[in-house]
Amino acid sequence: MFLTRTEYDRGVNTFSPEGRLFQVEYAIEAIKLGSTAIGLKTKEGVVLAVEKRITSPLLEPSSVEKIMEIDEHIGCAMSGLIADARTLVEHARVETQNHRFSYGEPMTVESTTQALCDLALRFGEGDEESMSRPFGVSLLIAGHDEHGPSLYYTDPSGTFWQCNAKAIGSGSEGADSSLQEQYNKELTLQEAETIALSILKQVMEEKVTPNNVDIAKVAPTYHLYTPSEVEAVITRL
Amino acid sequence: MFLTRTEYDRGVNTFSPEGRLFQVEYAIEAIKLGSTAIGLKTKEGVVLAVEKRITSPLLEPSSVEKIMEIDEHIGCAMSGLIADARTLVEHARVETQNHRFSYGEPMTVESTTQALCDLALRFGEGDEESMSRPFGVSLLIAGHDEHGPSLYYTDPSGTFWQCNAKAIGSGSEGADSSLQEQYNKELTLQEAETIALSILKQVMEEKVTPNNVDIAKVAPTYHLYTPSEVEAVITRL
Amino acid sequence: MFLTRTEYDRGVNTFSPEGRLFQVEYAIEAIKLGSTAIGLKTKEGVVLAVEKRITSPLLEPSSVEKIMEIDEHIGCAMSGLIADARTLVEHARVETQNHRFSYGEPMTVESTTQALCDLALRFGEGDEESMSRPFGVSLLIAGHDEHGPSLYYTDPSGTFWQCNAKAIGSGSEGADSSLQEQYNKELTLQEAETIALSILKQVMEEKVTPNNVDIAKVAPTYHLYTPSEVEAVITRL
Amino acid sequence: MFLTRTEYDRGVNTFSPEGRLFQVEYAIEAIKLGSTAIGLKTKEGVVLAVEKRITSPLLEPSSVEKIMEIDEHIGCAMSGLIADARTLVEHARVETQNHRFSYGEPMTVESTTQALCDLALRFGEGDEESMSRPFGVSLLIAGHDEHGPSLYYTDPSGTFWQCNAKAIGSGSEGADSSLQEQYNKELTLQEAETIALSILKQVMEEKVTPNNVDIAKVAPTYHLYTPSEVEAVITRL
Amino acid sequence: MFLTRTEYDRGVNTFSPEGRLFQVEYAIEAIKLGSTAIGLKTKEGVVLAVEKRITSPLLEPSSVEKIMEIDEHIGCAMSGLIADARTLVEHARVETQNHRFSYGEPMTVESTTQALCDLALRFGEGDEESMSRPFGVSLLIAGHDEHGPSLYYTDPSGTFWQCNAKAIGSGSEGADSSLQEQYNKELTLQEAETIALSILKQVMEEKVTPNNVDIAKVAPTYHLYTPSEVEAVITRL
Amino acid sequence: MFLTRTEYDRGVNTFSPEGRLFQVEYAIEAIKLGSTAIGLKTKEGVVLAVEKRITSPLLEPSSVEKIMEIDEHIGCAMSGLIADARTLVEHARVETQNHRFSYGEPMTVESTTQALCDLALRFGEGDEESMSRPFGVSLLIAGHDEHGPSLYYTDPSGTFWQCNAKAIGSGSEGADSSLQEQYNKELTLQEAETIALSILKQVMEEKVTPNNVDIAKVAPTYHLYTPSEVEAVITRL
Amino acid sequence: MFLTRTEYDRGVNTFSPEGRLFQVEYAIEAIKLGSTAIGLKTKEGVVLAVEKRITSPLLEPSSVEKIMEIDEHIGCAMSGLIADARTLVEHARVETQNHRFSYGEPMTVESTTQALCDLALRFGEGDEESMSRPFGVSLLIAGHDEHGPSLYYTDPSGTFWQCNAKAIGSGSEGADSSLQEQYNKELTLQEAETIALSILKQVMEEKVTPNNVDIAKVAPTYHLYTPSEVEAVITRL
Repeated sequence: MFLTRTEYDRGVNTFSPEGRLFQVEYAIEAIKLGSTAIGLKTKEGVVLAVEKRITSPLLEPSSVEKIMEIDEHIGCAMSGLIADARTLVEHARVETQNHRFSYGEPMTVESTTQALCDLALRFGEGDEESMSRPFGVSLLIAGHDEHGPSLYYTDPSGTFWQCNAKAIGSGSEGADSSLQEQYNKELTLQEAETIALSILKQVMEEKVTPNNVDIAKVAPTYHLYTPSEVEAVITRL
Repeated sequence: MFLTRTEYDRGVNTFSPEGRLFQVEYAIEAIKLGSTAIGLKTKEGVVLAVEKRITSPLLEPSSVEKIMEIDEHIGCAMSGLIADARTLVEHARVETQNHRFSYGEPMTVESTTQALCDLALRFGEGDEESMSRPFGVSLLIAGHDEHGPSLYYTDPSGTFWQCNAKAIGSGSEGADSSLQEQYNKELTLQEAETIALSILKQVMEEKVTPNNVDIAKVAPTYHLYTPSEVEAVITRL
Repeated sequence: MFLTRTEYDRGVNTFSPEGRLFQVEYAIEAIKLGSTAIGLKTKEGVVLAVEKRITSPLLEPSSVEKIMEIDEHIGCAMSGLIADARTLVEHARVETQNHRFSYGEPMTVESTTQALCDLALRFGEGDEESMSRPFGVSLLIAGHDEHGPSLYYTDPSGTFWQCNAKAIGSGSEGADSSLQEQYNKELTLQEAETIALSILKQVMEEKVTPNNVDIAKVAPTYHLYTPSEVEAVITRL
Repeated sequence: MFLTRTEYDRGVNTFSPEGRLFQVEYAIEAIKLGSTAIGLKTKEGVVLAVEKRITSPLLEPSSVEKIMEIDEHIGCAMSGLIADARTLVEHARVETQNHRFSYGEPMTVESTTQALCDLALRFGEGDEESMSRPFGVSLLIAGHDEHGPSLYYTDPSGTFWQCNAKAIGSGSEGADSSLQEQYNKELTLQEAETIALSILKQVMEEKVTPNNVDIAKVAPTYHLYTPSEVEAVITRL
Repeated sequence: MFLTRTEYDRGVNTFSPEGRLFQVEYAIEAIKLGSTAIGLKTKEGVVLAVEKRITSPLLEPSSVEKIMEIDEHIGCAMSGLIADARTLVEHARVETQNHRFSYGEPMTVESTTQALCDLALRFGEGDEESMSRPFGVSLLIAGHDEHGPSLYYTDPSGTFWQCNAKAIGSGSEGADSSLQEQYNKELTLQEAETIALSILKQVMEEKVTPNNVDIAKVAPTYHLYTPSEVEAVITRL
Repeated sequence: MFLTRTEYDRGVNTFSPEGRLFQVEYAIEAIKLGSTAIGLKTKEGVVLAVEKRITSPLLEPSSVEKIMEIDEHIGCAMSGLIADARTLVEHARVETQNHRFSYGEPMTVESTTQALCDLALRFGEGDEESMSRPFGVSLLIAGHDEHGPSLYYTDPSGTFWQCNAKAIGSGSEGADSSLQEQYNKELTLQEAETIALSILKQVMEEKVTPNNVDIAKVAPTYHLYTPSEVEAVITRL
Repeated sequence: MFLTRTEYDRGVNTFSPEGRLFQVEYAIEAIKLGSTAIGLKTKEGVVLAVEKRITSPLLEPSSVEKIMEIDEHIGCAMSGLIADARTLVEHARVETQNHRFSYGEPMTVESTTQALCDLALRFGEGDEESMSRPFGVSLLIAGHDEHGPSLYYTDPSGTFWQCNAKAIGSGSEGADSSLQEQYNKELTLQEAETIALSILKQVMEEKVTPNNVDIAKVAPTYHLYTPSEVEAVITRL
């Protein structure tokens, strides 16, 4: 019942009688308002693809960044509050650089993901880097390290899972179903590109163009596709 | 429904059940009460034009500053709470000067914009420079760096976009439509001046004079037009 | 509608759904309860005149200070909460003295005004000098620097404007109208004194005497009129 | 209307829609519950007289201190919360001693009063010496410095005024009227003593005795009258 | 009216519209729930007597301490929250020891009392030793210094008075009346002991025994009566 | 009346109009939900006995610790929130060890009890070791020092009493009555063991076994009985 | 009655009139929503088994970690908020490593458990590592030290118990009953594996596979079973 529920849902860190943390659940709702992002892991590497909502023809499409590099072997796609994502990515970049400096080797993808989630979990604790509310963003983290390619999914509660394929954002429900049908572990990177874009196409209300989607791969290093590379994938559909 | 909504909208950093941050949305409303500002990017440089509300004939028009220099290659127009804008601009000036001092070269326009948005995002976090509420101001940041001319638009959530042309403030809806009709990438700087002022004229309730508008360009350095330079643009309309 | 409005107006730094900051607006109301103050800029210098409310014949009129010196080239008239004004003036005095000490020259009138407004804007931020509520006072800052004479007007939001003439306080509405009728840029300082006092006379409920008004000028240095100098202006009316 | 008003009056530092600070106004009410105190300035010096409420015959009258020395040239009478007054007086004593130590001369009466009001104004700011609520006390500060004798009156808002004569506390309304009738600047100190006590007598419900009034003068140094000196003034009535 | 009153009485440091601090008044109520304590000053020294509520025959009467030594020349009786009293007494013991160490002489009784009240007044201020609520205890402080014997009474507001005789706690009203009838300044210490115990006897519901009363004197040093000394006073009744 | 009462009972440190601190009273209620503990002092030493609630046969009885050693001459039994008790015991252990280290001798039982109560009283004060709410636990502290054996009882308000015998927890009312009937000062330690266990047996709903009770003595050093020693006492019943 | 109860259940550290801490009880509810985990102690070592909820076939089962190593001789299974558990486990890892470094020997299982519970108890206290709410997680801590194998169970209140066998999470009620029937102290490790998995099988809604359960043992060192080792146990059912 809604009335009772609202009595527990404004305190940032208050349990309801059923043991739920509503502010975290509401932050997860924020992601359902976001644009759709998709990740697929193949043996050759990981593919990320995102929908970009270009609200005006006068907007520079390349400035709507929904895929970002964390380190040369790690990239991430995001859905939700982009400004929150930037804070997390900036934090991860510092962590990976510090790791390289201290140990002379790249940080593993799992450690990087864990570092991001530690920050996300600390909301409301008042220390320097953490926020006073949950981060309203989910990430798909694609990377390649000594264990080969890997894909992680994080949510606002600071929890993460490793996946073979995953969709986040407003179209994630339909996209996840399609991924379960079409994904298999033997996909080539090129097949993964095609699947990612064809699923994005289903959930987007507009025609897919190099202006309103971004694609990146980590295979084994991060590369954001140029408009003509995106065009090439589109023509394969 | 309004009653339910108000239960979530006073906490500075509280998600509503739908995943919205109302205080940020209300700050965005503050900008819709502000005067109109317009920016256009051309190959020669960027033009900024703002409406100045001169509430009394005894007010010194030049003291109503809605366009300000950040560095010699960056300027910005603003709409919303002017005192908030001054804090942001002052922060950006320090950042750009520090960058020049540390690296011996000007800060890029994107880095400057990012620095502004980092500060805007940190509201409610209690650290030294950040405010306890969202900044109630939007900025149009015009600049020129190694990548050529560029125009950025920021909002109170700490998000920014790169644009070819953009209007903010109370008349932004109509002005954005006009911009989409009239803008093309081949405009000369002089044509951009004329378009900016003619659109401002449509949304202003008064006759346009050098007293109630300001124009500036970054081409490639910041220059605020003198009253006679403004007059010259007006006569071209 | 009043009921809805009051839900947003007690948080010091909370936006209402329309993007308004009510506590700042209420502080502005505090000034409308204050005594009237008037400033006029002439080419020879700036004149300030204030009404003093002497609530008892046993009160020492000279201890009701509504015009104060900031530096030898800057003075200010105030309306609203006098104790708040003293804090601002004290802050400005320190700033101007520090500037003289560091740079060996007087601080400009605009920089001094900006420094005052920076402090006013920071309310609710918890740092050392700022208050936990908006300052409930408006100032008319009269000064003379390398740019000649100037008159600034500040309000509790930390915003300031440069004016040729301005009235603040309970009688400001009528006084501003009279100023617009009578002001022109060619006034002599003596004419400005007469206009200021004749307008004050209209808005005051008592007979004007050297006991219940104060006059000061910055031309080019600050001077508070003696009772006999005030008497001389009164007799000219 | 009472209901609306109470919505703004509990926050220590919250403006009401009319621009009022209710907590300060309520603290002023606390003084109207206090015992009456009177001060008169003459050319020879200043006289302070207070009513002492001796609630039990077993109370030591001399331990009910409502007149206190601040420095050898400054004393004060108080009405309201006595424990609050002690904090203010203690603060003033430290300030005047520091001034003597640093500059080798006594602090002026006005500077001492200003220092007291600075502390009173800072309530709710969280620094070390200030309180979390307004000080619930008014002071009559009598002093003698290079400008001759002077009498100041402070209230909980941190505002002060210089007076020739002033009454505070529960009987202040009637006492102020009597003072206006009987005061003139040519009074001798002895006449001032007589007037002060005769007015106190009118507002007190008991017979005046050396046990229930205190008298002090600053002429030019602070002196608290002995019971027999008080008796002498009583017999002159 | 109760409903209106409760709106102001939970903030620790909030004035009601009539200028009252309810939390302090409620703390004073806590003392009216406490056991009765009585103090009498004679020329030979001061006598303190308290009722001890022995709720179980298995309780060790000597561990119910309601009279405590502060320094060898100062003792105090208490009524209200005993744990609060212990904090105050501990603070006073440190102050008196520091005074002895710094100045080589005992602290005066008034200074000791002032130090206790300073701590009591600071509640809600957040510094190290002070509490977040008023201390719920009243003290009768008996001492002997260069000014001879003295008796002070403190309440939770941090106010103190010097008395010849005083009762606190649940039976204080009747006991104070009896004290006013029976007290005179020429009492011997022995007579004071008898009066104190006979009055306690009236307000206690049980038979007086060495188990349920404590007696102490400061004449000129603190001495807590042994059970047989108490028995001797009882037999004199 | 319940409704009025609840208005004062959530603030951790707020007095009700009758001068009560409800949060402390509620913490005392927490103890009435706890298991029963009993202490008896004899000339030979002190006996502690507690009920252990073994909610599952798979629970290790020895891990349900309701009697703990503080120092070799002090032990304590507890009832209420066990995690809170551990914090207090840990604090006491540090205090007694520090005392031994600093003074080369054991801390007295009373000083140890006082140190525990100081910590308990400081709740809500925000310093490092104290909690933000009252400790929800009562202790029976048994010890032996230069004054011989002693037994103290503490409650959540930070108050303590010395007792000959005392019961705490859900069965304390009946157990205290039984103790008053059966206790006398000439009991041997063995008789005290038997009385303690026979009273525990009355208030427990299960059969008494070495698994669901613990017994300890301080005579003169702390010793927790082994299961077979407990069995021996049970067979004596 | 629900309405009254909700008045006490949002303050993180507020007692209800019955002496309950509702936020802790609600956190315990969070665990009842979690997946089921089971631990059994045998003479040869301890077995842990957990249900893994694999919500999508695209999820990497090995990334859903519900059993984690703390030190080489200690592991733990968890139920509730996994992100909270990670913080606790990370804390325990640092503690055990510090212990090894400082004392050259492994930390005992009980000390490790106590260290975890100390952190859990400190919620709401504002220090660096503690959270602003109770940890929403229960742990089964399996270890082996000088006292042989041991199994501990912790809950959000910071309390812990030693057990022979224990189940936590949504299926704990049924699983605990089954454990009581089937457990005896003479079980071999292999029998314990079989019992743990057969009980998990009863409470899980899906078929048991190496993908949706994890098994680990500490015998005497921590070992997480490989999929084929899990398969081997499944086939024994």
